[in-house]
Amino acid sequence: MLVEKQKVLINRERLKNKLEDYADFGRTDNNGVTRLALSEIDLKVRKHFQSECEKLGMSVICDDLANMYATLPGKDNDQPPIVIGSHLDSVKKGGRFDGVLGVLTGLEVVRTIVEHDIKPEVPIVVANITNEEGARFEPAMMSSGVLSGHFDKTAMLGSTDSEGVTFGEALKNSGFEGKEENRLKDAAAFLELHIEQGPVLESESLQIGVVEGVVGMVNYEIEVNGDSDHAGTTPMPIRKDALFAANNLITEIREKMKKLDDKLVYTIGRMNVSPNIHTIIPNKVVFTLEARHQDGKTIRQVEEIIQGLPESSGKEKCDVKTTKQWNRNTVWFDEHIVNSLEQSAKNIGYSYKRMVSGAGHDAQFISTYNPTAMIFVPSVNGKSHAEDELTSWEDCENGVNVMLQTVLGLATK
Amino acid sequence: MLVEKQKVLINRERLKNKLEDYADFGRTDNNGVTRLALSEIDLKVRKHFQSECEKLGMSVICDDLANMYATLPGKDNDQPPIVIGSHLDSVKKGGRFDGVLGVLTGLEVVRTIVEHDIKPEVPIVVANITNEEGARFEPAMMSSGVLSGHFDKTAMLGSTDSEGVTFGEALKNSGFEGKEENRLKDAAAFLELHIEQGPVLESESLQIGVVEGVVGMVNYEIEVNGDSDHAGTTPMPIRKDALFAANNLITEIREKMKKLDDKLVYTIGRMNVSPNIHTIIPNKVVFTLEARHQDGKTIRQVEEIIQGLPESSGKEKCDVKTTKQWNRNTVWFDEHIVNSLEQSAKNIGYSYKRMVSGAGHDAQFISTYNPTAMIFVPSVNGKSHAEDELTSWEDCENGVNVMLQTVLGLATK
Repeated sequence: MLVEKQKVLINRERLKNKLEDYADFGRTDNNGVTRLALSEIDLKVRKHFQSECEKLGMSVICDDLANMYATLPGKDNDQPPIVIGSHLDSVKKGGRFDGVLGVLTGLEVVRTIVEHDIKPEVPIVVANITNEEGARFEPAMMSSGVLSGHFDKTAMLGSTDSEGVTFGEALKNSGFEGKEENRLKDAAAFLELHIEQGPVLESESLQIGVVEGVVGMVNYEIEVNGDSDHAGTTPMPIRKDALFAANNLITEIREKMKKLDDKLVYTIGRMNVSPNIHTIIPNKVVFTLEARHQDGKTIRQVEEIIQGLPESSGKEKCDVKTTKQWNRNTVWFDEHIVNSLEQSAKNIGYSYKRMVSGAGHDAQFISTYNPTAMIFVPSVNGKSHAEDELTSWEDCENGVNVMLQTVLGLATK
Repeated sequence: MLVEKQKVLINRERLKNKLEDYADFGRTDNNGVTRLALSEIDLKVRKHFQSECEKLGMSVICDDLANMYATLPGKDNDQPPIVIGSHLDSVKKGGRFDGVLGVLTGLEVVRTIVEHDIKPEVPIVVANITNEEGARFEPAMMSSGVLSGHFDKTAMLGSTDSEGVTFGEALKNSGFEGKEENRLKDAAAFLELHIEQGPVLESESLQIGVVEGVVGMVNYEIEVNGDSDHAGTTPMPIRKDALFAANNLITEIREKMKKLDDKLVYTIGRMNVSPNIHTIIPNKVVFTLEARHQDGKTIRQVEEIIQGLPESSGKEKCDVKTTKQWNRNTVWFDEHIVNSLEQSAKNIGYSYKRMVSGAGHDAQFISTYNPTAMIFVPSVNGKSHAEDELTSWEDCENGVNVMLQTVLGLATK
């Protein structure tokens, strides 16, 4: 039976055409996509998605967050479904693969199953999760956060876009607001295929990432306060230069971080200098530090480094204040599902590695109440959230074949 | 005769009252002053100044830049005058001493001379130079720059404030626009008393600064370009982190600068990070570096350090571009006038030091065509361009006494 199932493969050309069709909904001049959650163009792509699902014999329902569930019936429709899901929304000037590839993976899997007249034991659901990006309405992973009980729905309804429209209002006007009882509940599996958004698979010439989890992270804001004196009249020894103090702190942080585990990533992404005038000694510098690693132990070491920073910088005589903004523990996916994905990659003969995602995905929230795992496919130059985001058609095909094999393994006897 | 002149001293209480009167023109809630050049409140204080001068028997004329010259006639009015000048404009939320103290020094000197019925050999002019601060219309020292031929008048007339009003329009509407022929030409001396705006006199417990010149400076902008990748998915070794590269550069610059002369001051006042989002590796950091020192040799050493920076940072693999924005050579004041000021301080018995100004002043431009020097009085905590700018009444008094003695020395036989 396994041998037979392995003969079933998806259609690369069809997958490619679908990806390009969907990219037409919000395609930018530089061949990227802008399709903010519940925007006019997002509503159009949703209608298109619904119509395609219905043509395949799927029934489409929405829940109270406009999450869309397209169901292909199985032999026993009382059993929990296998769900293949991701998101159709994008960031502003994003790429043609992030999110939409995961949804179209579901459609291509269903299309292949239907084409081969395979009857799954349980229903197969293709899900489009609303507002994964959080680019229009913060935070990211909004709906999966509510589904899994991590976010409060009322608070989310009040989230406002840059023009003052609330998520609640956008939902009301979308035509995709359904009933709360339609929310995703028990599933046999939640499977998400996504581009890696990083350079690891490409640099190691691997075809598939079997994603075991999402790394934990911690976020700090570090504030350095000195005195803003005249750049021309204040001798060096009596300055309280917040920028020089920040420079020393960053050097110290980097020196210490370097000694921790190789897989640790840390970033000072935001830094604001006050008053930011070239003839005035800065009296205030605020910068962020975020660090990610799969082991809680390493994250704790990071926290020790930050907490161990001096409250007053040495020669610069500035005050240093560190504030933990938030943290998130590493999420580990379901071992059985991860093994199934690995087995599928192995059976087809793809090169792969087990890896942990550095970026967040809806799967991480859904994994807290359903057996979940993810598949990564390579990102050219590791680029994402950019118009030049790219994954080769072959790599897309490979990933969807792994998904198909896994779904067939789980859904057929 | 010298002994007799030394008996003549200014009136501290009167000086204090005048300073407080003038601070009422634009006084802020925190006892600072906002009196932008040619603003409504600046025009009011100018009228007040003119009326006070006229009451003392001075005639007031303006030139085409609204510079005000109040002249007390001497015995021989064909001789070049002795000019005591500074500015009545302030920065936004500035202090009660910067500029105005120099103008009121002139008024107090004239008042004392008139009071003691002293007849100077040559005319004495008290000058209010327009828009020294450049806080409303850039650049700073605008009018003295035009007077001395360093700035082009037509270009200055086009300088625009934050509301789109040009300097030319403000001049036209000020009521203080006079003839070009009234501009300051030859003078026997141009004398400016100013607060130090730095901490040196206070920290050395000195009463008077005899200012020999204004330090030269050089200004660079340094741009670091890397790649903006995802903070979670990009392993450390393959990042091109512009902020970390900038951090290394700043450390290198500071290490090398430290080895130069002790009196060198250098400041990284402005620094902008792009895209400045905590989850994205910065792809661009731009920062300024300005350095000031009285010796051209030291400034050249600074330039060698900047020009010697690598075009590509090491491990961070970022591109580094340094651009010289502008520089200014050290201005040395007239030795005879400087000696006269020093002698006056010595005669009265004040503690003093000869020093070089770290900040720019109108005197530096005027010194290029007239014998010029400055007097500094201590700034509490070195503060300036701030509402808590402070100089004690006693220190103000001391400075004005040095000015009086010097003027009497130059203007009487």
